[in-house]
Amino acid sequence: MPELSTKLRRFFGSKPTTSSLSEKQSAVKPTPTTTTPVKMSSTISAAQFLAAAKHRRSVYGLKNTSAVSDKRVQEILEEVLSFTPSSYNTQPLRIVLVTGAKHAALWDAISAAAEPVLKGAGEEVWKTMQGIFQMHKGAYGSVAFFDSANVIAESGKTHASAAHMFDEFSHHSSGMAQILVWSSLELEGLGANLQHLNAIPPVEEAIKKFLAVPEDWKLRAHLNYGDEAQPHPEVPQKLSTTETLKVVN
Amino acid sequence: MPELSTKLRRFFGSKPTTSSLSEKQSAVKPTPTTTTPVKMSSTISAAQFLAAAKHRRSVYGLKNTSAVSDKRVQEILEEVLSFTPSSYNTQPLRIVLVTGAKHAALWDAISAAAEPVLKGAGEEVWKTMQGIFQMHKGAYGSVAFFDSANVIAESGKTHASAAHMFDEFSHHSSGMAQILVWSSLELEGLGANLQHLNAIPPVEEAIKKFLAVPEDWKLRAHLNYGDEAQPHPEVPQKLSTTETLKVVN
Repeated sequence: MPELSTKLRRFFGSKPTTSSLSEKQSAVKPTPTTTTPVKMSSTISAAQFLAAAKHRRSVYGLKNTSAVSDKRVQEILEEVLSFTPSSYNTQPLRIVLVTGAKHAALWDAISAAAEPVLKGAGEEVWKTMQGIFQMHKGAYGSVAFFDSANVIAESGKTHASAAHMFDEFSHHSSGMAQILVWSSLELEGLGANLQHLNAIPPVEEAIKKFLAVPEDWKLRAHLNYGDEAQPHPEVPQKLSTTETLKVVN
Repeated sequence: MPELSTKLRRFFGSKPTTSSLSEKQSAVKPTPTTTTPVKMSSTISAAQFLAAAKHRRSVYGLKNTSAVSDKRVQEILEEVLSFTPSSYNTQPLRIVLVTGAKHAALWDAISAAAEPVLKGAGEEVWKTMQGIFQMHKGAYGSVAFFDSANVIAESGKTHASAAHMFDEFSHHSSGMAQILVWSSLELEGLGANLQHLNAIPPVEEAIKKFLAVPEDWKLRAHLNYGDEAQPHPEVPQKLSTTETLKVVN
C-alpha cells in the first residue's frame, strides 16, 4: 500500500508520537497562564465527580438574569482553559463570553442573518425558528466555543505525522471543554443549553462579525445560560448498556 | 442562495430544532438503562468539580495492575453512558473495556497490524513505534471509544435538517465521554493516557476484529490505564487567556 506508506512517512516523519492527546510542549509558543492554581488536596471521589456531571442537563427555560456574576463565569472559563487537554498541547480552543444586553444583541444578529436563509426554506420554517431565537435571546449569557483553524493547520505542519487527525482532535477537545463549562455553570445553580449555529454558515459569519473574532476561528458550539425558569430536568432515557458497552476480559 | 435553501428545507423540514445537543426522545428505540441512579443531594460545587477535573493528566508510566476492580471500572463506564449528552439523544457512543491478558493481546494485535505499515515508512519508525506499543502493552487495561456509523447515518435521516452535522456532533459527544471516563479513572487513583490508533486504518481494523465489534463502529480514541508507575504529572504550560478568552459585555 504505497499511498499509506507515504502518509505514514509524513505521519512519523517529524518525530515519533507517544500520544495523540498528550500534553507535551506545544508547537505554539506558550505564555504563562493567568489562572489561579486549584489546590488538589481537596480532590473528590469519582462517584462525587460523576454525580456532579450527571446534574448537567439541557435547560431551555432560562431567565435574562444570572445569580452568578460575569466575573465568576469568566473564572470558570479560565479554569477550563487552564487544563483542558488538546493533542500535543496544541490548544486550538478559543472561548468568547457574551452577557446581558450584548447577549440579546447577539441573538438579534443571529436572527437577522438567519431570516433570508430560513425564509428561503419556507415562511413556516422562519416563523418557528424566529420564536426559538426569541427564546434564546431571553437568556442571560452565551459561551461560544471556537477553534482556531490556523492552530489546527500549524499543528499539521509541526506534527506532520498526524496532519490528517488534527481537525478531529480539535472536535474532541472542544467537546471536553463544552462539558466542563456546561457542568460547572449548572453546578453554580444556572441552567444552560447547547446550540450549533455553525449549521448555517451565514449565521456563523454573523456571529463572528458581531463578536469581532479572527477570521480563522471556527464556531463549534454555543452555550446559552441564565437563571432557571423551569424545574431542573431529569436525565432522558438511554439505550441499555447491553447495546452500548462490551467487556473483554 | 438556492442550494442553501434546499439544504435548509431539509434542515428544518422534518421538525423544528430547538437544540442540536438536546436530550429529547431519540429516534433510536430506547430500552431502560440498567445503571443505578446517583443521588443528587450530595452534589458538589463547581470549584470542587473543576479541581477534580484538573487532577486528570496524561500518565504514560503505568503498571500491568489495577487497584480498581474491573467491576468498578465497568460501573463508571455505565454511569458515563447513562447521562453523556448526544445530539437529539441519538446516542452513537459505544464503549469497549479490555483488561488483563486481553489488554496485552490487544496491543500485540495492534503491533502486528502496524508492523508492515510502519516498516513501509522506514525501519527506524517501526523500531521506535514498536517500543511505544510495548510500553502501552505493559498497562493493565483499555477503554476503547467507538461511534456507531449506522446511528450517525440514521440520525441524519430522522433529523434530516441536521444531516450535515451529525458526524461532528458525534466527535463532540465522544470527547465529553472521554474526559468523564479519563477523569473518573484517575480520581479512583489510576493513571491513564489517550491514544488514537484510528490514525492508521489497518490498525483500526485489527482492533475491531480483535474486539469483535460491528463493522459500522468507528474508533474515536483508546484510553490505556493502570496503576501509576510514575509521579502524577503537573499540568503543562498553557497559552495566556489574553489569547484564548474574550469577554463581550
